[in-house]
Amino acid sequence: MTDPLAYPVDSTDPDEQASAHPAGPLDAADPLASFVDRFVPAVDVVSYLDGNSLGRPVTATLSRLSEFVEGAWGTRLIRSWDERWMSLPTELGDRIAAACLGAAPGQTVVADSTTVLLYKAIRAALRARPDRHEIVIDDDQFPTDRFVVEGIAREHGATIRWIAVDKATGVTVSQVRDVVGPETALLLVNHVSYRSGWLVDLPAITTIVHEAGGLVLADLCHSVGVVPMQLDEWGVDLAVGCTYKYLNGGPGAPAFVYARASLLPELDQPIQGWMGAADVFAMADGYEAAAGIRRFVSGTPPVMGMLAMHDMLDLIDEAGIDAIRTKSLALTDYAFDLVDAWLVPLGVTVATPRAAAERGSHVTITHESFRGIVARLWDAGVVPDFRNPDALRIGLSPLSTSFAEVRIGITAIRAALLAD
Amino acid sequence: MTDPLAYPVDSTDPDEQASAHPAGPLDAADPLASFVDRFVPAVDVVSYLDGNSLGRPVTATLSRLSEFVEGAWGTRLIRSWDERWMSLPTELGDRIAAACLGAAPGQTVVADSTTVLLYKAIRAALRARPDRHEIVIDDDQFPTDRFVVEGIAREHGATIRWIAVDKATGVTVSQVRDVVGPETALLLVNHVSYRSGWLVDLPAITTIVHEAGGLVLADLCHSVGVVPMQLDEWGVDLAVGCTYKYLNGGPGAPAFVYARASLLPELDQPIQGWMGAADVFAMADGYEAAAGIRRFVSGTPPVMGMLAMHDMLDLIDEAGIDAIRTKSLALTDYAFDLVDAWLVPLGVTVATPRAAAERGSHVTITHESFRGIVARLWDAGVVPDFRNPDALRIGLSPLSTSFAEVRIGITAIRAALLAD
Repeated sequence: MTDPLAYPVDSTDPDEQASAHPAGPLDAADPLASFVDRFVPAVDVVSYLDGNSLGRPVTATLSRLSEFVEGAWGTRLIRSWDERWMSLPTELGDRIAAACLGAAPGQTVVADSTTVLLYKAIRAALRARPDRHEIVIDDDQFPTDRFVVEGIAREHGATIRWIAVDKATGVTVSQVRDVVGPETALLLVNHVSYRSGWLVDLPAITTIVHEAGGLVLADLCHSVGVVPMQLDEWGVDLAVGCTYKYLNGGPGAPAFVYARASLLPELDQPIQGWMGAADVFAMADGYEAAAGIRRFVSGTPPVMGMLAMHDMLDLIDEAGIDAIRTKSLALTDYAFDLVDAWLVPLGVTVATPRAAAERGSHVTITHESFRGIVARLWDAGVVPDFRNPDALRIGLSPLSTSFAEVRIGITAIRAALLAD
Repeated sequence: MTDPLAYPVDSTDPDEQASAHPAGPLDAADPLASFVDRFVPAVDVVSYLDGNSLGRPVTATLSRLSEFVEGAWGTRLIRSWDERWMSLPTELGDRIAAACLGAAPGQTVVADSTTVLLYKAIRAALRARPDRHEIVIDDDQFPTDRFVVEGIAREHGATIRWIAVDKATGVTVSQVRDVVGPETALLLVNHVSYRSGWLVDLPAITTIVHEAGGLVLADLCHSVGVVPMQLDEWGVDLAVGCTYKYLNGGPGAPAFVYARASLLPELDQPIQGWMGAADVFAMADGYEAAAGIRRFVSGTPPVMGMLAMHDMLDLIDEAGIDAIRTKSLALTDYAFDLVDAWLVPLGVTVATPRAAAERGSHVTITHESFRGIVARLWDAGVVPDFRNPDALRIGLSPLSTSFAEVRIGITAIRAALLAD
């Protein structure tokens, strides 16, 4: 493959290639098009299709970090804990809740990694339902979710009830209805499947689990920031989400946990630390958990990792989550069109549901050659995500992705397959 | 108090005041004096005495962060995980081990908060000694350590054996000898006490606990970066330490955990996540822990929080930990001189041991008025740390603190007490 971008697409006629499925009119009509210029330029990248794995930095983050190092950290120094950092985890949690979760303040806090927060939330849920012994999850759940559940189940004598999902879709309402019952303590479900992009019917599932007396923990990693939700209205009990995907918080930025206000007093997470105590600086004997959502905090908040996501939340507030969803659906529709026209004829399979109500913001396609070509695509500045054994995920972050970029990327994937 | 810095110190005669216990000759003779200029200037601070709580940013961190946002994050994007970030937690752990811990590579990793790593390390230690039921800690241990232990003990049926320490010192070798025995699974000890600054005799304690068949977990938060240690030689089993104090990693920067190589295969921490799995991207069924220290990792590494500490480690490598310790002792000696001359006559008590072998790098003093004056000191740009109920900690970070700064600070504390 010499130059994937020059490779013919629909035909060997350059004129035909240039005119097929044009992106220009779509970008011209996109009310959010100008947001693309608010991100740090990726100098050697012609098509970034992995915003669902690592969101791009907002340009404003550059000055935010310098000002932070010289000001809040470098000059205010330890005084900043009193002045702003102690309240940062809950303030930022409330911002995420308002912008993305459909949740009132006081129920969301930014703390550890997704994995550690899943551990705390699952353990707290099991403690809140001590007479029940079953955790329901599906067999296509993201590995860390499965690993955490397996570790907890083995140690605490819980049983895992596996839902076997159709890999082309994801957990359905009827599957949940079939498995939950009087033993169900907790159902853990990915709001959007990391693999297929399937969007579960979270309100319907929550109702069913509640009717059975169980609790629902939603993993929002692949939905927060692109799929509008109403956690309060739906009655979701617990949720954990990632901030380095569509919230552009930077690699390994800390995750957040949401806990329904009325359930909060019953929730008792096992990693008791000073920053989750009722009176942090009492240095007293014995741990008493904070009354509110801060009880999910254990150690000193990772302040540096909480900075960048403010800039993306500014953009989300400006654009509005509903407009972001509209563009997300348009981007994924366009990706389907190009995949159908240019890749399906080469043997590529689409793993993502077609219905708008059933998908998030990434399109997953599979082909046995994808493993072999991904390194060449990356070298050429076309950056989708590869997942074992044979999947490319085309992640479309609405504020930073243009339609032209989608076209360039899928053109290059076709070229690479043809050259393989 | 109008201007604490203008307030007379030893007498009302300005000439006498200016000449007493001069800092100038000490700074002039200090081989590490020039390092002070390598930190971001704190524009309104005349005396920063809290490097033991939050280290100051190194100037090089400013460009490191910009380059990171534009380069590794903004341009290399997801490719950086393959290119550098996946190995960052262990590489950085090895750097800390070499510069500060006296430990060979492969035993140290940077991961979650101190609290979460203490939880993992304690749980792993208890699993490795299933026939023993006692955790030994002292009653003056940092709150998060006590809270974590109390939570684990309650849940897993372990017994806590408390060592009652003399608040003016800390845990002694004979106290440890008196309490450890055939039931001892683990002793958790602060290498340097957060309150008094007492430096425990870690090698002697480790030997005693090992003779009893137990394991030792050292909390290095207040010693790493200022007190040389030889964890490998001493045979310490586990250690956890903070990177935002003397390693200047920034507020809430992630902590590290050390586990003795020969013990590692027995250590099984309970928060099973994808980044601690043997094959991270297999996305396979079932969790198998990584063979090495990476098994202590759970979620996605907090990359942004790992950046700044590189710059301080550069300075530590340049200065050498032994030279840092020499200056630390000179700074604390000087603080003792000034406190004895100017504060003890006003009723201030020194809580830190006098012997060099028995102290870390902060000097703790107590007075019933300290709670009332600390806000005024902070407003005047003199920034020590206050700890309930009546303690000021004078934290002396050797590379960023001058002798003149110590003198200015203690002068101001005297002035504030006199004006109170």
